[in-house]
Amino acid sequence: MGISPVIPDIVIGRLPIYLRALSRMMQERQGYTSSQELGERLGISSAQIRKDLSHFGEFGKQGTGYDVAYLHEQIKRILKVDHEWPVAVVGVGDLGRAVAHYRGFKARGFRVAALFDSDPSKIGERINDLTILDMDRLQDEIRRQAIKVAMVAVPAEAAQAAVNQLVQVGVRAILNYAPITLAVPPGVYVQYIDPVAHLQHMTYYLQP
Amino acid sequence: MGISPVIPDIVIGRLPIYLRALSRMMQERQGYTSSQELGERLGISSAQIRKDLSHFGEFGKQGTGYDVAYLHEQIKRILKVDHEWPVAVVGVGDLGRAVAHYRGFKARGFRVAALFDSDPSKIGERINDLTILDMDRLQDEIRRQAIKVAMVAVPAEAAQAAVNQLVQVGVRAILNYAPITLAVPPGVYVQYIDPVAHLQHMTYYLQP
Repeated sequence: MGISPVIPDIVIGRLPIYLRALSRMMQERQGYTSSQELGERLGISSAQIRKDLSHFGEFGKQGTGYDVAYLHEQIKRILKVDHEWPVAVVGVGDLGRAVAHYRGFKARGFRVAALFDSDPSKIGERINDLTILDMDRLQDEIRRQAIKVAMVAVPAEAAQAAVNQLVQVGVRAILNYAPITLAVPPGVYVQYIDPVAHLQHMTYYLQP
Repeated sequence: MGISPVIPDIVIGRLPIYLRALSRMMQERQGYTSSQELGERLGISSAQIRKDLSHFGEFGKQGTGYDVAYLHEQIKRILKVDHEWPVAVVGVGDLGRAVAHYRGFKARGFRVAALFDSDPSKIGERINDLTILDMDRLQDEIRRQAIKVAMVAVPAEAAQAAVNQLVQVGVRAILNYAPITLAVPPGVYVQYIDPVAHLQHMTYYLQP
């Protein structure tokens, strides 16, 4: 009982949200929390939170609830972000640049480790301590650093080709900002960031 | 039969993805498609697509499938993006700037109509044809333009206060880039963009 071998992906998708709330509690120097409090912060039922966490073990104590720092540490371990993943950023337009500058990765298990673009006017430019490399150096550099995680912020028409290159040299997790659905082989994970799709989802409910 | 009064939110969330695929087919000058083809492009079963669309009416014809332009037009209408929504961007850091520059909104039903920041060094700066306004002008400007949709890209600790201001003057849909869960009253919709949460979701499945 308690630990289940195959855990629904939707449960896995909620763990980063729990982790984010726990990080915030740690910043606020809160020692303990409950599934009720977490649920209220996140708009998720406390029963759901208890059920989600029960897939991975027993983290709470009757009466005292969850030790924030301990649960935070355990979820980091489960999500494998208790160490740092180097990340490649492919496409250094406005968005890739914002990603390259973003300071929120480090505390959450990631480090931007390589930047690529095909625009000659950008190649060689430095952002923080990284130099933007030409796309034709992508595969060598990703192999050299054994990078498994990439963020793709190239135009839609260039995205599939870039992803094919990434997958060939061992990238297994791709966060895609291009507004296009990608084809990848089994064992490669893709998640999408499409702000307009989120906006359109919400306007359905609005009165114009 | 066919048209149902309350449609599950998860179905609504898939419509923007269908719309995006149909837009791409239009760009590729494809006249007709099928639920099979859409499903293959999107990694969704054809039965799911037919079921989702059946909530809104009969769009396909036996034998010929879906008229791409017609279905595109109908989904735009359902999502209420057959006209343009003005959007406020709150927080013009790297990310807000990328959003302000992004050219992909217009074709999909949105137009960045106002930019706000609290940093005196940014206020007055022009991006495209917009001037960055001080946060203390936010409420007047949003009222003046009757803006109902906003993107929030301020630091986590400033996000809830910004959202409270937005909601007070009639904003009903908020896309939140700050890594924090927001509290909003009923009738206000929030969606979240947290790239690190997506990365953490995927690293669960990887071998370090």
